Amino acid sequence: MRSKDELKQEAIFKATIKLVNKIGFVSSSVAKIAKEANVSPATIYIYYKNKEDLLITTYAEIKKKMSVALLKNFDDSKPFRDILFVFWKNGFEFVAKNRELYMYAEQFANSPYSENVDHKELEKHFEPMIKVLQNGIEQKVIKDVSFEILATFIFYPIMIMSNSKISKALELNEKNIETGFQLGWDAIKL
Amino acid sequence: MRSKDELKQEAIFKATIKLVNKIGFVSSSVAKIAKEANVSPATIYIYYKNKEDLLITTYAEIKKKMSVALLKNFDDSKPFRDILFVFWKNGFEFVAKNRELYMYAEQFANSPYSENVDHKELEKHFEPMIKVLQNGIEQKVIKDVSFEILATFIFYPIMIMSNSKISKALELNEKNIETGFQLGWDAIKL
Repeated sequence: MRSKDELKQEAIFKATIKLVNKIGFVSSSVAKIAKEANVSPATIYIYYKNKEDLLITTYAEIKKKMSVALLKNFDDSKPFRDILFVFWKNGFEFVAKNRELYMYAEQFANSPYSENVDHKELEKHFEPMIKVLQNGIEQKVIKDVSFEILATFIFYPIMIMSNSKISKALELNEKNIETGFQLGWDAIKL
Repeated sequence: MRSKDELKQEAIFKATIKLVNKIGFVSSSVAKIAKEANVSPATIYIYYKNKEDLLITTYAEIKKKMSVALLKNFDDSKPFRDILFVFWKNGFEFVAKNRELYMYAEQFANSPYSENVDHKELEKHFEPMIKVLQNGIEQKVIKDVSFEILATFIFYPIMIMSNSKISKALELNEKNIETGFQLGWDAIKL
């Protein structure tokens, strides 16, 4: 069972995401978030230094949840292409099921707050993915280019294709998910 | 010389982008945008039905500017790879020079307003790019998959790599821009 503390933090987490998605970062004050979470503003200040700390921590928490979701069924004894395809499918599932978390993260990444995030620290959650790519480079299965460029073609397309679904330009059926993966794989493979 | 009308609309366009980027969509009222643009709210209502119309039109205008920028030095007698590389380089130049426009467009695409946009209509600006891809498919140079999936690998990576630059994870030097293009090309080519 979760402690009272955990339940409160969970309520604050959900309220922050809900409110920011609805009215944006600027209008979302600690007072309004507290009201939405059904706690007192003082309670928020127990866990977070200030609004910025709350917003950044919420973003970090989402990234962590994302990395956990991506690692479902992770089995590094499989061939590289299969390991990456599991990440790929997990990614689509996460975005589809956690639309609000994803929307918050997108908004956040495009906001000035993003500049105050320790991106290196957050990347640690994604170390298993980075390791898979590094192994692939060493074994000359995938191209020897920076992680950011590889991610552009094998992780971020999940987000873009999910957005295209929302704008109704693309149906996210199994065939399109597999086609997308084939293109991503062709991009990074040697 | 531009007319008084054009100058006013230009001022409203710039003020909308500046204010939305600063305080978000929800807090940006017509009154505040008018103040920022140094016009009366009544002036805004001459050109726009309401706030939503102003926000959507601003987004459409940005997409149009983006398409014009991408088409610089467009020469469809060149080989496909070269034509696409010109789009690619133009895209990076546009994002670098028009950070505020790009930030607005990103925020907008992730906002509920995006659902009320005639995306088919906006796509018309990008018809020359779509035609290039269609020709490439017909001539069996690139894969026969939907335009949205092709764009995910040959147009959108420009945005992702530009964002990676902002989070300081990736330097946008000539080499990285060319490497990124090579991966995108490998993704879509047959």
